[in-house]
Amino acid sequence: MENKQILLERRPSGPVKDEDFKIVVTQTPRLAEGEVLVKTVYLSIDIPLRLWLEHDIPLDGGFKLPKVELGKVVTAFGNGVVVESRNPDMPVGCSVGGMLGLQEYTVVKQGNPFNHRLPDGIPLDIALNGLGNSGMTAYFGFYDLGQPKPGQTVLVSAAAGSIGVIVAQLAKNEGCRVIGLAGSDEKTRWLTNEIGIDAAINYRTQDLDSALAEHCPDQINLYYDVVGGAILDVVLPHMANHGRVVACGTMAEEGGPGTWSGLHQLYSNLLKKRVTVVGLNAADYMAQYSEAGAKLMQLSQEGKLRWFDTVIDGLEHAPEAINALFEGGNKGKMLVKVSDGA
Amino acid sequence: MENKQILLERRPSGPVKDEDFKIVVTQTPRLAEGEVLVKTVYLSIDIPLRLWLEHDIPLDGGFKLPKVELGKVVTAFGNGVVVESRNPDMPVGCSVGGMLGLQEYTVVKQGNPFNHRLPDGIPLDIALNGLGNSGMTAYFGFYDLGQPKPGQTVLVSAAAGSIGVIVAQLAKNEGCRVIGLAGSDEKTRWLTNEIGIDAAINYRTQDLDSALAEHCPDQINLYYDVVGGAILDVVLPHMANHGRVVACGTMAEEGGPGTWSGLHQLYSNLLKKRVTVVGLNAADYMAQYSEAGAKLMQLSQEGKLRWFDTVIDGLEHAPEAINALFEGGNKGKMLVKVSDGA
Repeated sequence: MENKQILLERRPSGPVKDEDFKIVVTQTPRLAEGEVLVKTVYLSIDIPLRLWLEHDIPLDGGFKLPKVELGKVVTAFGNGVVVESRNPDMPVGCSVGGMLGLQEYTVVKQGNPFNHRLPDGIPLDIALNGLGNSGMTAYFGFYDLGQPKPGQTVLVSAAAGSIGVIVAQLAKNEGCRVIGLAGSDEKTRWLTNEIGIDAAINYRTQDLDSALAEHCPDQINLYYDVVGGAILDVVLPHMANHGRVVACGTMAEEGGPGTWSGLHQLYSNLLKKRVTVVGLNAADYMAQYSEAGAKLMQLSQEGKLRWFDTVIDGLEHAPEAINALFEGGNKGKMLVKVSDGA
Repeated sequence: MENKQILLERRPSGPVKDEDFKIVVTQTPRLAEGEVLVKTVYLSIDIPLRLWLEHDIPLDGGFKLPKVELGKVVTAFGNGVVVESRNPDMPVGCSVGGMLGLQEYTVVKQGNPFNHRLPDGIPLDIALNGLGNSGMTAYFGFYDLGQPKPGQTVLVSAAAGSIGVIVAQLAKNEGCRVIGLAGSDEKTRWLTNEIGIDAAINYRTQDLDSALAEHCPDQINLYYDVVGGAILDVVLPHMANHGRVVACGTMAEEGGPGTWSGLHQLYSNLLKKRVTVVGLNAADYMAQYSEAGAKLMQLSQEGKLRWFDTVIDGLEHAPEAINALFEGGNKGKMLVKVSDGA
């Protein structure tokens, strides 16, 4: 079968450009014993995807996710449906999630730890959203590292984004006062009116410092931060004593809209307020994923948690989707829909 | 009695200058009921003393240590001997520690929570060193926030300083591999030969990045940091996964030798390595001070912990001592000796 693929042509710097990629059409190979051919349905457009265009991503124990090689298919999380199978554990018609790529078809080998069969009947968009990395990052960052308590003030950056909108809802469920940051008035309205958080601040047009003073009169106990950068500089003086910053992302450092100015006041503020800053990688919690997924699904069924995604149709639009992610062009999870899987 | 006092004449910026202070001689006042007159023996020259020449220092619960008012005696931690008493709980001859000032005599009021009678027989230099803020900061920062494990690599900045030299010894006692940073070859030699740590790096003359790579082949599990600044920028990429940075000081930000360049790589490194950075104020542990003091004294009596101090004689040299502290002119605790107390 013909397989449209997006190869990395050169390493991008800042926003990706068309010339960083090359679109080719190849033929899917004949499967070896144990292999299956997965027809891509959804691709997850997220920060790691942008990171490994430039850098290795280190994992525990000396392992790493290597950066994408020049001339090779760009790696991406995604899921799809098995259309050919030489592996009885993954028959034709079942869904497979994991490390696919920016391509229409992926050959998945038996025993590849980065791919797994999805439970039957799970909607493939939710599998990449609340039950995927976004949901797991939100869940463990908020509960395990954030250690929220009812009545506390929680600030969420990129609150309309894939992780932020889940954290915001979890925090409301826990009885916290929730303030969200977003990059447009349309998003701040959506966050207060639809998601029901206590206040939302447009960090691009409002004076963040005075808005935080207004909306966080008791200061901030937990800052769930997916952006870093200059925003963090402004937030830190508003942290409460013994506050916690959960560092889940570096959007401002990775070609995002903010100019990274360094945390000039970091140490003074850490020290005076005894703040804890802790970095998160959801993969550390892999053994607890199914438990967390069950909890999130239950909240969803009880109407306490809603999933949101922004879907861009067509594999060839994946590079635009990467830039749109950094420009804030999504509410909830950013997905590229490649096919219906059939 | 005549009382030589050092008043704050103007707010310093960077190293203090003679013109920032004014030395006056006043008469000690007649004591009111409940007051005692303390003759200063030792004054503690430490980072907070430099901080509150410029800034309020916030405490829990909305309290703060206010910055020193212009024209008033510079506040300083210290201790001394009661030479006149109208408080039966603090008779003549007993020792009192706490918030004194850069002056020969201080009137201590009854019930002032910042002053307390010291146990009889305690050497007044040790009371400000291992049993004072330096010891408590070292103890709780290392054990409670640092959570060290035998065999782990511990990096200590300002390892020849008052806090660092205690942390270095505690870490060796716990079976850690201990690397120290110091600002002169004389200090690095002292640290390896006398204190017995595994390696010491002169951060002023050696290439810190390659020296860390050499001496920390398994990367750094705990960085006990009293300086912040550009050194932290270089250290962070050498942190091990799930490493911890205990932030106890901001010497590089407070007129110290390093140029503060901001933590440009902070977030990337926090995230990739899931590092925790946590700020410490030993005062949070006040309820456990006597327990910690007993533990430290026991280690000292067992020969597992030695106290070091650098004593400068004469109240009028206190401003020089402040600058010397930031220039690294001390091994162990920096003290000004004002009198023998008799």
